[in-house]
Amino acid sequence: RARGRKPWKLMLQILKIAIITVQLVSFGLSNEMMVTFKEENLMTFRHLFLKGYKDNWQGSHAIYSQADLYDHIYYLISRYSHLQNLTVGNLAYERVGGTFTPLTVCKVLYRKSNVDPGNDTFDIDPHVEKDCVSIYSASSGNNKTHTNFYLDFKRLLSVNVYLTLKTVNLQTVRHHELPDCYDFHITIIFDNRAHSGKIKVDVKNQVRIYECRDWNVEGNSGKIDYLLVLFDTVVIVACFTSLILCSRSVIKGIQLQFEFSRFYHTFYNKVVSLSDRLEFVNGWYILIIASDVLTMAGSLMKIGIQTKFQSNYDICSILLGTATMLSWVGVIRYLGFFKKYNILILTLRAAFPNVIRFCCCVAMIYLGYCFCGWIVLGPYHDKFRTLGKVTECLFSLINGDDMYATFLKTRDNCYMVWLFSRLYLYSFISLFIYMVLSLFIALITDTYETIKHHQKDKESVSQLHI
Amino acid sequence: RARGRKPWKLMLQILKIAIITVQLVSFGLSNEMMVTFKEENLMTFRHLFLKGYKDNWQGSHAIYSQADLYDHIYYLISRYSHLQNLTVGNLAYERVGGTFTPLTVCKVLYRKSNVDPGNDTFDIDPHVEKDCVSIYSASSGNNKTHTNFYLDFKRLLSVNVYLTLKTVNLQTVRHHELPDCYDFHITIIFDNRAHSGKIKVDVKNQVRIYECRDWNVEGNSGKIDYLLVLFDTVVIVACFTSLILCSRSVIKGIQLQFEFSRFYHTFYNKVVSLSDRLEFVNGWYILIIASDVLTMAGSLMKIGIQTKFQSNYDICSILLGTATMLSWVGVIRYLGFFKKYNILILTLRAAFPNVIRFCCCVAMIYLGYCFCGWIVLGPYHDKFRTLGKVTECLFSLINGDDMYATFLKTRDNCYMVWLFSRLYLYSFISLFIYMVLSLFIALITDTYETIKHHQKDKESVSQLHI
Amino acid sequence: RARGRKPWKLMLQILKIAIITVQLVSFGLSNEMMVTFKEENLMTFRHLFLKGYKDNWQGSHAIYSQADLYDHIYYLISRYSHLQNLTVGNLAYERVGGTFTPLTVCKVLYRKSNVDPGNDTFDIDPHVEKDCVSIYSASSGNNKTHTNFYLDFKRLLSVNVYLTLKTVNLQTVRHHELPDCYDFHITIIFDNRAHSGKIKVDVKNQVRIYECRDWNVEGNSGKIDYLLVLFDTVVIVACFTSLILCSRSVIKGIQLQFEFSRFYHTFYNKVVSLSDRLEFVNGWYILIIASDVLTMAGSLMKIGIQTKFQSNYDICSILLGTATMLSWVGVIRYLGFFKKYNILILTLRAAFPNVIRFCCCVAMIYLGYCFCGWIVLGPYHDKFRTLGKVTECLFSLINGDDMYATFLKTRDNCYMVWLFSRLYLYSFISLFIYMVLSLFIALITDTYETIKHHQKDKESVSQLHI
Amino acid sequence: RARGRKPWKLMLQILKIAIITVQLVSFGLSNEMMVTFKEENLMTFRHLFLKGYKDNWQGSHAIYSQADLYDHIYYLISRYSHLQNLTVGNLAYERVGGTFTPLTVCKVLYRKSNVDPGNDTFDIDPHVEKDCVSIYSASSGNNKTHTNFYLDFKRLLSVNVYLTLKTVNLQTVRHHELPDCYDFHITIIFDNRAHSGKIKVDVKNQVRIYECRDWNVEGNSGKIDYLLVLFDTVVIVACFTSLILCSRSVIKGIQLQFEFSRFYHTFYNKVVSLSDRLEFVNGWYILIIASDVLTMAGSLMKIGIQTKFQSNYDICSILLGTATMLSWVGVIRYLGFFKKYNILILTLRAAFPNVIRFCCCVAMIYLGYCFCGWIVLGPYHDKFRTLGKVTECLFSLINGDDMYATFLKTRDNCYMVWLFSRLYLYSFISLFIYMVLSLFIALITDTYETIKHHQKDKESVSQLHI
Repeated sequence: RARGRKPWKLMLQILKIAIITVQLVSFGLSNEMMVTFKEENLMTFRHLFLKGYKDNWQGSHAIYSQADLYDHIYYLISRYSHLQNLTVGNLAYERVGGTFTPLTVCKVLYRKSNVDPGNDTFDIDPHVEKDCVSIYSASSGNNKTHTNFYLDFKRLLSVNVYLTLKTVNLQTVRHHELPDCYDFHITIIFDNRAHSGKIKVDVKNQVRIYECRDWNVEGNSGKIDYLLVLFDTVVIVACFTSLILCSRSVIKGIQLQFEFSRFYHTFYNKVVSLSDRLEFVNGWYILIIASDVLTMAGSLMKIGIQTKFQSNYDICSILLGTATMLSWVGVIRYLGFFKKYNILILTLRAAFPNVIRFCCCVAMIYLGYCFCGWIVLGPYHDKFRTLGKVTECLFSLINGDDMYATFLKTRDNCYMVWLFSRLYLYSFISLFIYMVLSLFIALITDTYETIKHHQKDKESVSQLHI
Repeated sequence: RARGRKPWKLMLQILKIAIITVQLVSFGLSNEMMVTFKEENLMTFRHLFLKGYKDNWQGSHAIYSQADLYDHIYYLISRYSHLQNLTVGNLAYERVGGTFTPLTVCKVLYRKSNVDPGNDTFDIDPHVEKDCVSIYSASSGNNKTHTNFYLDFKRLLSVNVYLTLKTVNLQTVRHHELPDCYDFHITIIFDNRAHSGKIKVDVKNQVRIYECRDWNVEGNSGKIDYLLVLFDTVVIVACFTSLILCSRSVIKGIQLQFEFSRFYHTFYNKVVSLSDRLEFVNGWYILIIASDVLTMAGSLMKIGIQTKFQSNYDICSILLGTATMLSWVGVIRYLGFFKKYNILILTLRAAFPNVIRFCCCVAMIYLGYCFCGWIVLGPYHDKFRTLGKVTECLFSLINGDDMYATFLKTRDNCYMVWLFSRLYLYSFISLFIYMVLSLFIALITDTYETIKHHQKDKESVSQLHI
Repeated sequence: RARGRKPWKLMLQILKIAIITVQLVSFGLSNEMMVTFKEENLMTFRHLFLKGYKDNWQGSHAIYSQADLYDHIYYLISRYSHLQNLTVGNLAYERVGGTFTPLTVCKVLYRKSNVDPGNDTFDIDPHVEKDCVSIYSASSGNNKTHTNFYLDFKRLLSVNVYLTLKTVNLQTVRHHELPDCYDFHITIIFDNRAHSGKIKVDVKNQVRIYECRDWNVEGNSGKIDYLLVLFDTVVIVACFTSLILCSRSVIKGIQLQFEFSRFYHTFYNKVVSLSDRLEFVNGWYILIIASDVLTMAGSLMKIGIQTKFQSNYDICSILLGTATMLSWVGVIRYLGFFKKYNILILTLRAAFPNVIRFCCCVAMIYLGYCFCGWIVLGPYHDKFRTLGKVTECLFSLINGDDMYATFLKTRDNCYMVWLFSRLYLYSFISLFIYMVLSLFIALITDTYETIKHHQKDKESVSQLHI
Repeated sequence: RARGRKPWKLMLQILKIAIITVQLVSFGLSNEMMVTFKEENLMTFRHLFLKGYKDNWQGSHAIYSQADLYDHIYYLISRYSHLQNLTVGNLAYERVGGTFTPLTVCKVLYRKSNVDPGNDTFDIDPHVEKDCVSIYSASSGNNKTHTNFYLDFKRLLSVNVYLTLKTVNLQTVRHHELPDCYDFHITIIFDNRAHSGKIKVDVKNQVRIYECRDWNVEGNSGKIDYLLVLFDTVVIVACFTSLILCSRSVIKGIQLQFEFSRFYHTFYNKVVSLSDRLEFVNGWYILIIASDVLTMAGSLMKIGIQTKFQSNYDICSILLGTATMLSWVGVIRYLGFFKKYNILILTLRAAFPNVIRFCCCVAMIYLGYCFCGWIVLGPYHDKFRTLGKVTECLFSLINGDDMYATFLKTRDNCYMVWLFSRLYLYSFISLFIYMVLSLFIALITDTYETIKHHQKDKESVSQLHI
């Protein structure tokens, strides 16, 4: 009889997955356009404002001589002044109260720094001062600024150039969406904090997206935005319904469990163990509830983004993404109704605790290797430079990353380190690939066979689960 | 007695595989030459017509300033005018009715676009207009065109340059084939649709291949083309024979099945199940029939290509390629006659349904990860930019792709996304490599042992199969 | 009793392995120096004679315009004339009978080639003519040559420049070996065979190594060369002894087998099967004999190289390398005397036939995929361009190569090919990684268990083997 | 009762691991800053002193013509003279007794070298002479030096330029540590030893770090250094305590063993076997003792580094790193107290001897392949150039490195070598990936099942272990 009611729930879940996925895809597509526009603008700024910038993937641009730094700054100012005649895009200066906001060049300096390495002496005051010059893009005022710009390299920590540009993302017009206005707050940093003779150049780009003040698009009524908000509302309603239904089932399960344990206590005078109690709570419902809550939160944020109320794309996409993933994983539950599918899911589930247990043991060895590799090989190899990188590098090595490149780079060192790196890498890889990975396979194979042999015993148990 | 007839069929099949493979190889070799010629010409066009083009593998060429775009267009026109003195190949202008076809420069513009980002206002008419100028390669007329060429960057969507060049692929002469004539319809696109300050430059090359109008090759009679067509006809005949024979066997099997089910129904009063019915249809015959049909279709298309009737190389090569693959796979059937080979094939076959079932379950988790990765990491990582790319990237990661690079690129983000990307990647890789791949091994190992133990029981069944 | 004689043989084998390895290492080290010298010279020639040559790993250098080709040739001639003032090495012109050998510039042309692509007509005589000009490095004669050098690009197949330079490899002096004289026959090819507008430039370098005519090295008597020849002789003697001893054992085994089969035939009136007969021949002896023969052949060639009698390094290194590999593999035989080591070797041996059988089946599917991938994806992807490359690429994909790059490159095609490439790659990788590799593991696991359970039964058999 | 005492030891161990890890991390962080500073300075030197230096990852810079070498040297001298106006860092010349130390240009030459390759004759004296010129950075003296600088390229082995620069690493000020003084002894080597026409350029950088003579930092008392030394002392004390406790346990175990063997000998009149004796010594204690000794040694060295007494970072980091790794691995012991964790550890431990044994067998085949690959493919492929590289390359190939690249590079050779390379690579990969790796899995799977079935028998044994 219980099965007679199910199709409604099932249909709701399937509908929910469908509309969540549609929502995710539509959000992703509009997201993509925005991201591409931001990125291309950042690339444009690099090409416009950095002298001799080349499109190489490493992206690190550095200056090694004093004259070069002056050149870069003057070039930047000159390019900024002639921006309107240079750019092929819609870039414009920001205007605050009728006047254009200036380009600001800031010198960040130690308060005092008398360093004389030749004498092995120094006298330094590590407090930091900031000294800024505003440069207006008026045509005549530039020359004056150039003449009295002087940098004391001994004290210099960094030169920061701040500028603000505005543009409109016209692309969306072709998708019948309304174009948004963009504020780019660009910071170009010439970083000399290390005083190592190398000044790193970096362009940072902070963007603010907002509805334009006054607009007119021929033949576009802007209705599509309302439809999107409506769709989000539908999603929230569907999720809320699903949430209510699942919560009810979970609550019923908990009630049943209390009754059972009272009954058990009365008749057998024994306490029901925790693991038996948990049998009454269906894990799948918990999964669906989690997914619903996340979707609702994500959809609310999405409405906020759509109405330009806020623009926290990252949190919203994490919420929606996780929710969609959980929904899809939940589909496995319905596949589990078929017996042949069930065995595979049961195997993964049964093996899980053992795998986790084994992972704990292995994690100890892994951590040991991470610390050791970081401290010894860090100075000689880029992939071992920080602890986070070591963790990722070793994890990748286990799973089949390019080893030879890793070997090769630890080549030109002193003999002790060379020997250590060989012992380290060979032992690590052998231990993990030949023993640990094989044991994972042994674990799963064994569990699969156990599950298969006890399928009949399990079936009565699994009845309870689903 | 049934076995006494077999060798004829077997010999026909072996002959068929041999001639199909020969046909494929000959088609592939002539295809290769054509493809290389097309590609080298495209590379030549890039080097001739794009200013400052370098052979770097990324292949993306972009323009960031107004002056640069004008320069590119003028350079292109000038290079086109002096083409005959520049190129080391056989390129020539197209001539229609005695006059050379011109180079066409088209501006694609919005009908109206008053964008003032400084004021946060815009007034745009998204309808697109096209405005073209024809430039004849006559020596004197160029200068005039240059002077009145003006681009309104606010309205500009793209500048397209169309030109047509002709050449002859002389290489084939050395292989005693007749040289073909090639029409290259080249489109050079300066794409400003994004209005992001970056104009992407792309060279497209559409080619038409046809028999030259009038030709003379010393000491070549052009007979080889007729031989190739003859060979294709032989292939079609062989496949047709094979098709007839296999169809007969299949039909016989179906008749037998009907008789059997009638008999079974009469005597036992039971309906024969679908899986028992399918036992009467030999899957290998279906495979051979499919292969034959594809080969015949492909050979017919190949004759069409050989006689310059049509030039759809892609469809033809897909047909021939798939047919050849199926033929080779069909060889396994004959290896299955040996008992020791049989066990391995039977294992794969027996494990197949379980593997597919398991794949379905896994696909749900996989799809969940794909959606989630796309929406969250898409804006920050190139490999997660589109849904298709995510699918490929995750699939590659499971099978041992460079993980470190993937980790590295998700490095410089805000903390939330960084944390999410780590959780996402570690959980995905661990789940799939340690659990899912291991379960595949468990599945196959178990099936192998089952098959081995029941070999004797199976043998009676397999009798029926082959 | 039979074991009492063994230590002598064992000691001989160990001694043999030791001296073979020493010989290999010494040969390898002197080989390395020669190879590096050759390679660095080739790189020098590229930098000296090619205009605008850059050290990029792709190594393809191409010319796209007529003026560029003339420039390259004139640059080459001028650099050759001033070689002595340019090079930092010991390069010198070849002198034959007092006069310097000239630089030769050869034009390779079709005899006739009237190609008019604009009219779709051509009239070609595919016979090839060669037309050479010799340029002497005399200071005044150059200008004249330049003026009358003319290339007919319609007819031009290639321009080949031949030049000969000599040098001495002084490096060996530091290792107390005698420096050798080197003749470099350099060919610079400007290849226009495709007439695709792209002329490929290639530098080829053929080298002749010989003893210098007249030499004097302070404090070096050149004795080390004799010691090396002596050592090679010792190796040959050791191998010959080993060869005799092993052949005797093999012959005894064969005699025993004949006696046994005669006895068996007489008493049981049955023929001994081939596999039983092969039990009498010890495979390890065959291995050692093969190794000995190869070592002797290789050592003889090495003496020839040492005495500058011949210089076929490749064949010699293949012979010596294979011999050393076989010797080392032979060591496993002695490890097999220990029971615990034996089980592993027996497993590999027992699994071998099954693995080979399975490989046959898989090879059919693999070949099918190769042909199909070559014909369909060849035009669109570099890794699928030739059949050999496809084989290597697919093999690499199975074993964990970068898949994503392969996916990525098949991206920008027409929809049919794109779809096909996805189906092709996903199905191939899934089939091979998830099913075929798993079945290999199932095979080995099963064999290991079989061997382990029958260890006792096997022991009596293995007694016979060793 | 014995368990009642344990918590103290356990808490000591956990405390020890915590403080060791903290010590390691703090050492690593200060190490990182020093390494980055050194590396950035080296990069600065390359950019300042080498003409036309580009930041490409290959890092090989080479000169091919005489004029180019002179240019490089003059450029270097000129840049050195104007260093103070060029550098953006704190670089200064070294001063010894008031005068600046000069830049030294040394020519390394053969004593005599009359090489005439054109005549096939040479007359060489391989003894090496060194001829140095000192250049003071005084403004006027430079021109004179330039004029009389002459290089005899026939005799030239290398030009070495030595220069010394000093700087202060001010970065540490921001972390409240005291800045150190750095002496960079830079050697720029133009290496012509090969006389192959290619002069390799290399910049080497030896650094001495010491406390500055006289310093003043506003608002910094330098106390943090004393705290670090104090912390190291705490680590040493903790390790010493742990060492004492563990040694006592080990000694007790050995005593017990002696008593047991005496008892056994008396009552049963049998000698206790070595493996039974080793049961009495707890391996975990040995591990902890080793870790403690290494930590104490490392901490002592670290105190030495902190007090600028010595600066052997490498040895110190190897000691501390290994110690930390062993400590973390030791944690597994405590996880082993839980039964379910124990089975996994026992499996790894039980499989270990078999894995090692199998590795021995495999190593023979592996070594054979290494030698063979080195000698045959070495001249044609970079990854096979030295024996060490071959070992690493083959090891990487087994574990999933990019195979296609390896295949591709062995492409353009003579047919014999090409064929050999294919046979070599296919056979190696198939053998190792399909058979050897599978056998590892079979070994582990089998051991896991054995351990599981005998868990009960084992438990009594494992009682003894822990």
